[in-house]
Order: sequence, then structure tokens, then C-alpha cells
Amino acid sequence: MTSPNTLICFTNCLLPKEDGNLVEKDLWIDERRGVVLDSQKTFFSAKQRPDSIIDVGGNIVSPGFIDIQINGAYGFDFSVYEGDSDAYRRGLSTVAEKIVETGVTSLVPTIITQEKSLYPTLLSLLRSRVNPKGATLLGWHAEGPFIQAAKRGAHAPLLIRSPSHGFASFEEMYGTENLIVKEDWLMHSGASLGVRIITAAPEISGVLDAVGDLHQRGIVFSIGHSIATSDVATEAVRRGARLITHLFNAMPQLHHRDPSIIGLLGASPHINTLFSPVISSLATPAAPVLSGQIPLRATTKQQSEAFNDHETPPQTPALTTTRVEGNLQKLGLHLEKGQVADLEFERPFYELIVDGIHSHPNSVRLAYNVYPEGCILITDAMKILDPHLKDGVHEWRDGKRLVKEGFKLCLEGTNTLAGSVVTLDACVRNFSRFTGCSLGEAIKCVTFNPARCLGIVNRKGTLRPGADADLVILDHGGNVLGTWVKGMEVWKKE
Amino acid sequence: MTSPNTLICFTNCLLPKEDGNLVEKDLWIDERRGVVLDSQKTFFSAKQRPDSIIDVGGNIVSPGFIDIQINGAYGFDFSVYEGDSDAYRRGLSTVAEKIVETGVTSLVPTIITQEKSLYPTLLSLLRSRVNPKGATLLGWHAEGPFIQAAKRGAHAPLLIRSPSHGFASFEEMYGTENLIVKEDWLMHSGASLGVRIITAAPEISGVLDAVGDLHQRGIVFSIGHSIATSDVATEAVRRGARLITHLFNAMPQLHHRDPSIIGLLGASPHINTLFSPVISSLATPAAPVLSGQIPLRATTKQQSEAFNDHETPPQTPALTTTRVEGNLQKLGLHLEKGQVADLEFERPFYELIVDGIHSHPNSVRLAYNVYPEGCILITDAMKILDPHLKDGVHEWRDGKRLVKEGFKLCLEGTNTLAGSVVTLDACVRNFSRFTGCSLGEAIKCVTFNPARCLGIVNRKGTLRPGADADLVILDHGGNVLGTWVKGMEVWKKE
Repeated sequence: MTSPNTLICFTNCLLPKEDGNLVEKDLWIDERRGVVLDSQKTFFSAKQRPDSIIDVGGNIVSPGFIDIQINGAYGFDFSVYEGDSDAYRRGLSTVAEKIVETGVTSLVPTIITQEKSLYPTLLSLLRSRVNPKGATLLGWHAEGPFIQAAKRGAHAPLLIRSPSHGFASFEEMYGTENLIVKEDWLMHSGASLGVRIITAAPEISGVLDAVGDLHQRGIVFSIGHSIATSDVATEAVRRGARLITHLFNAMPQLHHRDPSIIGLLGASPHINTLFSPVISSLATPAAPVLSGQIPLRATTKQQSEAFNDHETPPQTPALTTTRVEGNLQKLGLHLEKGQVADLEFERPFYELIVDGIHSHPNSVRLAYNVYPEGCILITDAMKILDPHLKDGVHEWRDGKRLVKEGFKLCLEGTNTLAGSVVTLDACVRNFSRFTGCSLGEAIKCVTFNPARCLGIVNRKGTLRPGADADLVILDHGGNVLGTWVKGMEVWKKE
Repeated sequence: MTSPNTLICFTNCLLPKEDGNLVEKDLWIDERRGVVLDSQKTFFSAKQRPDSIIDVGGNIVSPGFIDIQINGAYGFDFSVYEGDSDAYRRGLSTVAEKIVETGVTSLVPTIITQEKSLYPTLLSLLRSRVNPKGATLLGWHAEGPFIQAAKRGAHAPLLIRSPSHGFASFEEMYGTENLIVKEDWLMHSGASLGVRIITAAPEISGVLDAVGDLHQRGIVFSIGHSIATSDVATEAVRRGARLITHLFNAMPQLHHRDPSIIGLLGASPHINTLFSPVISSLATPAAPVLSGQIPLRATTKQQSEAFNDHETPPQTPALTTTRVEGNLQKLGLHLEKGQVADLEFERPFYELIVDGIHSHPNSVRLAYNVYPEGCILITDAMKILDPHLKDGVHEWRDGKRLVKEGFKLCLEGTNTLAGSVVTLDACVRNFSRFTGCSLGEAIKCVTFNPARCLGIVNRKGTLRPGADADLVILDHGGNVLGTWVKGMEVWKKE
């Protein structure tokens, strides 16, 4: 019971819960194993005592932040390979080691649209082991090349492609070995990591056909750099798309008659055809009228008759009754008259860059209020990202240069935003200000929500027993005081 | 105690509460006085027995619906005067008497942009008494002429005006006697009714100056047919604007960098300058970080320093620190360092036409989820509105014709929507389907919310004791079974 151990107990601290609340509670971790412990079991049942106790002074001990879209930082660009593999590996280590000062303990490096020949090299280099004192790489976010030219942003137009053979084209582009079959991949060493997120435009020929295969492999299909209509975007989600890349940016503005990708945030979670269900009994007066809709422009003939007995059924240019029924059949559904289909339509997660530049504070709050559970803050940061760097003109790639002006980063000579230079901890603070949400709720958008999106809540983004002891100590203003990775302190504010 | 009375008790029914729930409860009304009674007082304290008991069969007894934007119905157009005052009065009575079949017991007839000379005539005729068996007129909704030509919709371009002298121009246009000083106007006879809602574009010169005066008179200033920027729209709300006319329609699309009028739905309710407050104590861990923002594109210098200690303060093109401070000074605020301003910024109500045509279901759900408390369903119906009318081409006004096709109504030869032909009860049912909200929550958007917007919750839109006994009996699918106005049954489904 008093044998030497490697247990650490954080005390006098607030812990973010998965519901966004902060609670006053101790946190136990095992330094050697690098995991969070069940304090109840450890202390009360096994009667263990901690090797050390850390008084956090009333501050917050949060799960480490996860950045699922970041192009580079501290002068290193994940998408640039200059022929020197060692230099690339060193750059990767630099980012991983330095980024922890911003609270980030896990990241998904983003590779933007490349020449096809570069993908094998980049993806194999990205598999290299990194310094254990740095943030963990969770696999790669391939943004492009299967994107919409009209919404390419800073992507090179000549490198944009169509995956004419569906999933086979994805395999050919990224390499079959990089699109691994779904498994508990975090249990393995870095060597098994592959592409974890793919941003593509579902309206591009061949893309929609590949969504299901990608989804089955545990790869997050993210809708982005796209002009998909509401119908196409919805179909992508039906087939497994579960993320929207930098919401609002590189996609159509919200048009109320075809709200497109942004409108997915308002899509009903229920596909409910044919008839209006009724409140089931007087005993449950508050029971909702479960009257979701086919999340397309759908009104079946029967619905129209049931609901609008006075009126001719409205025209449904986007979707006829036959199409609705067709879609239901695809889903294996054959409804009888009076039967209610209650299929879950899970709205996708969505990324927000909360630097005060990429979206107006009102837009940020608007998106968050519509669907708080899906909100994921990202930096989308460029290699320019370095909290210590001054404003001015900086070299980028392919001879292009970027102009940094505060949080704003443009291609030189244009007004085209080229990613951002905001840190993730600054996003958390901005987000709380813009939306009026609590710090705990803002933290959730960089911990629990991205972990849920990637399907790794047992290991990352939470303080569940058994999760990696990746921690960020924050003051009540959301400023980073210290960072821990797998049970080791890797950064501390001076 | 057993003396004859005129009390009616509705039993075996569900009553919508103001929070959107439905509860099983009896409702007592006094038929003679035409008001809702306090059942507790009447039955238990005063020991009164009802003169009659109505078994509603488990259906819903809702407050009567309120339509705050309706251009006409049953062949009559509120904006058309053909020189015959009696004919106009008859038309008005026809609408009031027939509209009750759609659950509407109160309406605010809308006068669209007119020649100046017509306003006195129209507004005085609209004051005429109507059949007590019909819906109640609550005053008039003047939509135009102070609107944005670029967003005029079906309004006549040559009649659009600028109110160069601010409020005085409004008085000159509508008549001073029609812009009455705030009072409990519903207590008076119809003769005291004037303009209750004005739709105007705050970016038009002179409009913003008039908002405060209109607001003080109890007139609802509604932002519509406008291209106001976020800044201008916000300023209008600060000065008293409390409604958005047919959200999404006749205004800019949501642009995430200047979300304009639609973005007001995401505006923080708190103006919180200068410093990030902290969670006040460990004892209240769930307390929000009250970090709202100036609901403009505001980041004060101090805020930037406090939040982004790593970074150069972001550029705030729309609003410099000085402007923020200027705005605060306008509001009579002079903040010291460390002081937190927590002014309430009340987001405006917003009208939605939920016919499945004017906005995509996803857009409807998006708006509702952002700010449910502000949602008001309207028909914006044209004179074509008549649940019994067939599709086809119909005469309108000024020699123009309208094409009705289901719920869709366009100017002949164009694709410009010209109001709608949906009934308000159909909107309620659509809304519940589109958003997945309960029928009780949908009912709130045609009863309690519009009554709150007009400031008349003690008389209309609720079942509070003393409120007018305007009632709609609905089945669980939201279909109207019967309608009561001031204690009298005025319509019953055959």
C-alpha cells in the first residue's frame, strides 16, 4: 500500500466534464504508464497513495487540446518536401515539441493538394517517430486534391483532380497502405498511422462513390472546398461524411432556398416520412411531435395530403416522391401506410477557425448555437504560426509569399486568406467571448468533440480512466500555464 | 354559488404553456366577458360551477393564432383601395370572418409601399369596426415605403422613399395620428388603433434616426427589405428595432465575414468590454465565463492584450477601439480598467414564412435552433390566400397578375416570389416537421412569441387569466377543429 509508485495526484483544481461543465475534483494519473487513473478505485479501493501531489492553485486541468487541421508551424510546412528526409523529420519534431506551449497535445497535420508523386514520400515521412516530449501525431489530414476548383482557396489549380474510379482513385492517389482498414489504430505505434481525414468535394465526379469505402476504413470524410447543393451534401452525410472543413470558408454562402453545406447544421436528425406522428398519449404531454423530415427538399405526396389538407401539395423540384421512396429503398426501408421511419441522420461535425478574421463573431455564435455538439475549433495554421513572430511578409512555397497582419494571413498581392496564424488556445478564448459560452464548453470544442469525430474518446480528449494523460493547465482566463503529454510535463509557463 | 353564469369549462384537453410544453389541464373562460379565468380562483375559491362543460376529447386548446404579416386573403388585398370605402370595409370583414378557419384570431394587416396620398385613406379605413365574429385587427403593419430599392421584391420601385427628416418624415408619410404614443392600446376600441409595425431599411438615410422615436411610441420597428451591414443592423437594434421582416427574404445572404441582418440571431446578448471575467469561485464551477462581445466586429485593444498575449491585436476593420468606446459613450458608459460592462443586447424577433418555398427546411431549423425565443411564424399571405382556391393565374393589382402553383406565388412572367398563399395552421405543422420541435413549441411561435413582440401578452397569445378568450382547438396533428374569439365559437370543422 505504501510501495513506491509513479502516481501523481493533481489537487485543488477544476476538471472539464464531457458535458462542458467544470467540476472541483482531484485527478490521478500514472506517470510511468502515462494514463489517467480511476481515482475512486486507486485511492479508495486499492488504498494507494500518490508519489507526488500537485496543488494546481484552483486552476483548470483540461485534457490536452487536439488540432485536427494545421498546415504547419514554427517555420515548418507539412506540405513542403525539399528532398531532404532528415530535414523534414526535424521540422516535424520541432512543431511537435513547440506546439505544446499552445495547449495542443495531439494534432492531425494537414497536407494540401500536392502533385501525385509527392504523396507517397510525404505520407511515409509523416509516419516517422517523433520526440516523445512533443505532441502526438494522430495521422494525416489530406485536404485535396479532389476538391472544387471554384473554391480552391490557396490550393494549386493545376493539381486538382477528379477521382474518376471512386475509391480506387483515392487509393491510387494516397497509396493503398495509407488508407488502412478500421482498427484501434491508436493502440499501435506511429508506424501504423495513415490518412485519418480526407477533405474532398462530394459534387466532384467519383467522390460520392468513395465516401462509403472511406467511412468503412475509419477515415473521416470531410466536406470542404466544395459547392455541393443541399441534396449532394446530404447524400454525402448519409453515406458516411462526418465533418465539414473550415465551415463558412471555401463553400457557398448560406442561401435560404438551398442552404448547401452550411445548411447541414440545420438538418433534422430524423428521417420521418409519410405521416405526422401524434403525441402518443395524454400521459406524456411534453412528448415531441416527432416530425422531422427527409433532410432533402422532401415532401412526400402523402405528407402533403396529411398536413395540408386545404392545399395542393407543394412542388418539390429537388425531390419527387419517387426519389424519396428510392432513397428509402437504398436505405433498406419499405414503409407501410401509417408507418413512421425514424432513421437517425447524424449531423456532421464542423470545423471553425475562431481568429476573428475567418468568421464574424456573430457567425461563430450562430453556428455554435445551431449545433453545439458538432463544434470543433481548429487553427488551420500555416507554417508562419509562431506566437513569437512579428507581422510582415514571409516566404511560403512555390515562390509565393504570405502577408501576416495580426491574425490575418493573405497571399501576397491578393485578399485571399491563406489559412491562419492563430493559436488554438487563443481560439478557445475568442470562442468563449464570441459565443458567451463557458470556458468549459469552449474547451469541449478542442478536446471531447474532435476526439469523438475521430472516434478516439477512450484515449484522447477526455479524462476517462485509461485515457492518455495529455493535460493542459489553464487559468480561468483560458491561458496555458503548463502542458503534459502521456504523464510527462513537457512545457511550463515561466 | 349556483346562480346562473356564463362560465365555460373546457375539459379533457391539453393546454400549451408559455414554455412550449403541453399540459393536461382544464381551461375556464367567461363567455360574456370573453376572457380566460383563473380556474383555481373560480372553482376552488369562489366555488363557482360552469354553465357548460366542453369535453375536448383529448385535443389541444391553444391561444388563438396571431399573424403579424398578412397582405390579404379571400380575394381582398389590404393595400388596394378602389375608391369605394364600403367595399373596402366589406373586404376587411370578409377576411376577418373567414380567416378564423385557419386558427387565426388576431392579425396585423400589412400595407405595402403606397403612394403617399393613399396612406391616410387606407389607414382610416383600416380603423373601421369589424364583425365581432371575426378575427381581431391589432393595428397595421406598414411595410415600406422607406425600404431599399435593391431589395424591393414586389414593391413598386417608383414609390420607394427616403425619410430625409427622420421621424418627422414618418409622421408625414403615415400621418401623425397613426403613430400613436405608447399606451395600453388594446384596452381601447378599434378607433384608437394605428400603425403597430413598420418595416424599413435602417441603411436608408434618415431611418436610423427615427428608430428611437418609433420605439418610444410602442411601434415595432422591423428591419426588412434592406442590405444593412452588421454594424448598421446592430445599431438599429440598439436603438430599439425588435423584429426582422420575413427573415432570409429581401436581405443579404449570410456572409460569414459580415453576417448582416441574419447574423443578428447570433449576436451576443451581452456587451462585455475590456476584460475577460473569470469564473468567480471554485464554489460555482459551472458559472459561465461571461465573455460576450460587443456585437459588432469589436475587439478592443485591451481585450486583445488580455486574450492574446502572444499576438499582435487583430485588425478590426469594421470597428476600431475608438469606435467601440464611442459606441459605449453613446450608451452612457464610461468603463474603468477592469470594469465589465454587461449591457443587455436583446436579439430581435424574426419572422419566418414556413411554406417550404420561401426557405429550405434546413434554413428554418437553423434559424430556430439559433434563437428559438425570437421565432414568429407569419403567412405573408396575398389576397390569393384561400384554402379552397385552385392553382393558376390570378389578378393582383396595377394590372399585374400572380401565378399560384401549390404554395408558390410569383409575379407573372418572373420568378420573383410575391408573398405566399400558405395558411398559418399549415405553417405550424410544417414548422414542427422541419425543425423536429414539438407541436407545443410550434404553437408558441404563432401565439406567445408574436404577442411578446407586440407587448400584449396579457391580452393575446396566452391563456393567462384576464386574457381574451381567443382559442383554437387543434388535433394532435395540428389541424384546426374549431376557433373561438372573445369567448364565442366562430368556426367549427364540419
